[in-house]
Amino acid sequence: MTTLDVHFLILAGGSGTRFWPASRSTLPKQLLPLAGPSPMIRETMERVLPLVRGPEQVLIAGGRATEAATRAVLPEVPAANFLIEPAARNTAPCIAWAAEVVGRTRPDDVLVVLPSDHHVADPVEFRRVLSVAIGAAREGRIVTIGIQPTRPDTGFGYIELATSPSKGATGPTPVLRFVEKPSRAIAEAFLAGGRHLWNAGMFIFRARDMMAAVRRHLPEAAALLDLFVGAPEPARALEETFPKMPSVSIDVGIMEKLGGGGDGATGDDRGLLVVPGDFGWSDVGSWLAAWELAEKTAEHNTRVPALVAVDARRNHVVATSRKKVVALLGVEGLAVVETEDALLVMPLDRAQDVRAIVDELKAQRPELV
Amino acid sequence: MTTLDVHFLILAGGSGTRFWPASRSTLPKQLLPLAGPSPMIRETMERVLPLVRGPEQVLIAGGRATEAATRAVLPEVPAANFLIEPAARNTAPCIAWAAEVVGRTRPDDVLVVLPSDHHVADPVEFRRVLSVAIGAAREGRIVTIGIQPTRPDTGFGYIELATSPSKGATGPTPVLRFVEKPSRAIAEAFLAGGRHLWNAGMFIFRARDMMAAVRRHLPEAAALLDLFVGAPEPARALEETFPKMPSVSIDVGIMEKLGGGGDGATGDDRGLLVVPGDFGWSDVGSWLAAWELAEKTAEHNTRVPALVAVDARRNHVVATSRKKVVALLGVEGLAVVETEDALLVMPLDRAQDVRAIVDELKAQRPELV
Repeated sequence: MTTLDVHFLILAGGSGTRFWPASRSTLPKQLLPLAGPSPMIRETMERVLPLVRGPEQVLIAGGRATEAATRAVLPEVPAANFLIEPAARNTAPCIAWAAEVVGRTRPDDVLVVLPSDHHVADPVEFRRVLSVAIGAAREGRIVTIGIQPTRPDTGFGYIELATSPSKGATGPTPVLRFVEKPSRAIAEAFLAGGRHLWNAGMFIFRARDMMAAVRRHLPEAAALLDLFVGAPEPARALEETFPKMPSVSIDVGIMEKLGGGGDGATGDDRGLLVVPGDFGWSDVGSWLAAWELAEKTAEHNTRVPALVAVDARRNHVVATSRKKVVALLGVEGLAVVETEDALLVMPLDRAQDVRAIVDELKAQRPELV
Repeated sequence: MTTLDVHFLILAGGSGTRFWPASRSTLPKQLLPLAGPSPMIRETMERVLPLVRGPEQVLIAGGRATEAATRAVLPEVPAANFLIEPAARNTAPCIAWAAEVVGRTRPDDVLVVLPSDHHVADPVEFRRVLSVAIGAAREGRIVTIGIQPTRPDTGFGYIELATSPSKGATGPTPVLRFVEKPSRAIAEAFLAGGRHLWNAGMFIFRARDMMAAVRRHLPEAAALLDLFVGAPEPARALEETFPKMPSVSIDVGIMEKLGGGGDGATGDDRGLLVVPGDFGWSDVGSWLAAWELAEKTAEHNTRVPALVAVDARRNHVVATSRKKVVALLGVEGLAVVETEDALLVMPLDRAQDVRAIVDELKAQRPELV
């Protein structure tokens, strides 16, 4: 069943360095095909299109440096659906902007906010979970998706449930609080306790409810929105006003301030709900994660046409040139990433440290960053 | 002091695979700058030019597949000095050919036969040793250079001296016999005993003495030479005749058959002499040897402009494209060799196994071999 009252807002403002040399300041992670044949943002959109009538129900938020490339990757999204931020101001301002754009004419429509650079192994289950969340949003709740943890990861924020869910329960559950990236010991306790889910940055709400939350918790942002949404010269008004927005994430600016729940509460005082999700989610945070997701040969090397391997196992090979052969002899656990102008070789277990190379290059060869 | 009666014959018939992907069937090792800024064959020539008047005293022997590239690398060598073999017949036929070419008009001139793909760290000492050998050759002896071993290498043939040299002696010494590549235990005994030198494939003799040795030990080769050297249609005669030559090395075909010495002997019955040499010789047999010879950074990585290294040590980087950056993070002891159409990554201690990759490519991508 498709719906006319749902809009997806895909956040494409990222400019990470963890996928250098494939990623660059003008070609960030979401524009790369890191976990499938298409750029991640395109896979994100195609994953949710079955829930709506078409790409006109998709909004894209991002910066100017990546605007042209993003439009090129999503040609079927109407030009007006791109919310291009004149300056990076984290997630709260652009989400508030999207809620305002939709809500001025259709305040009861639901917005689904999704990162553009995550991977989902089971899109059918993903859409089922989203549908549950959309149902709760239609009833006036602000909802997030919490990922069922599979390991004591210290790289994610966590969502603490207000109550232990009954075993196997999958419906919306009240959130007690957000927890910043924990220590290893705390992450292990979270995993054992069953009351914590990973925060994957997905939020679902009616436009009117987000507009109200912004007015209440980020009044200065709400006032600035009034100056450029629907202004007589919107481009100029945006240019002048948006940079004055507070730079704050939606988690900190809105979600953590929502009421603590309780059945008698009203509006956002009723608090944030979370729908647990278990659909093969990955934030694809490094070349190691990309290797884990990639199709592999019997020797656990990435399956790419360019590869010739002898005595080589568990290597991740990325070669952008189709003509070039990549020959691996006697190596194990390496990332070998080759582009037109750069080559990176490192152990996959050092994948978190790519930034050190990028920092070195910023001084020596800034054109390669 | 330069001389007019000496000619260098540089053997450039090699077509190794140990330096893939830099080397190819049409671009063998001697045409690569593996141990200095110029191709090895060019460094070989420049190393000996101080001993003669000019490049007109240099002969080059090689095959047709590499002829154009070799001429391009040595433009100052006269066109007629290239002895282009219509078919590969190992070293004895082309050395006999060169001796015949020189000896028909200048039988008392000396030929110095040198491989084209070896490295010498101390060219001054090298030329001093060659001068000693040339002196002995002028007196009618056939002479070789024996390299003072520095390790029990099992990859070389050895030259056994007829007598233990007096300590520090560096003059010509009678050879007892050639020894094929030994086992490790035997190589260790050779190193300890002090009576064995490495056979580096360098031979020095008067043209007339080699012509006589060929007539005696390879009479069928001598007869074939008469059919094309100085023939009315030399190109056509060469084409028809050379492929009929026996395929045999100079070591096996001539050197091992020379008399066992003894002061009363005459001509080649007087036996082969060897001049010990200690001038930083390397046959540059693999990427590991190339790394050992290369200029390196404080972290023992090859010093190349393309390299950006973080936590990376003892790596050999070869990058043919000047625009490309090669970033190494957290790796040690690797060879990373990058060309326009291929990339090789392997541990340096597997450098002897490059052939396995080449064999794999012969089936899958023969155009890359």
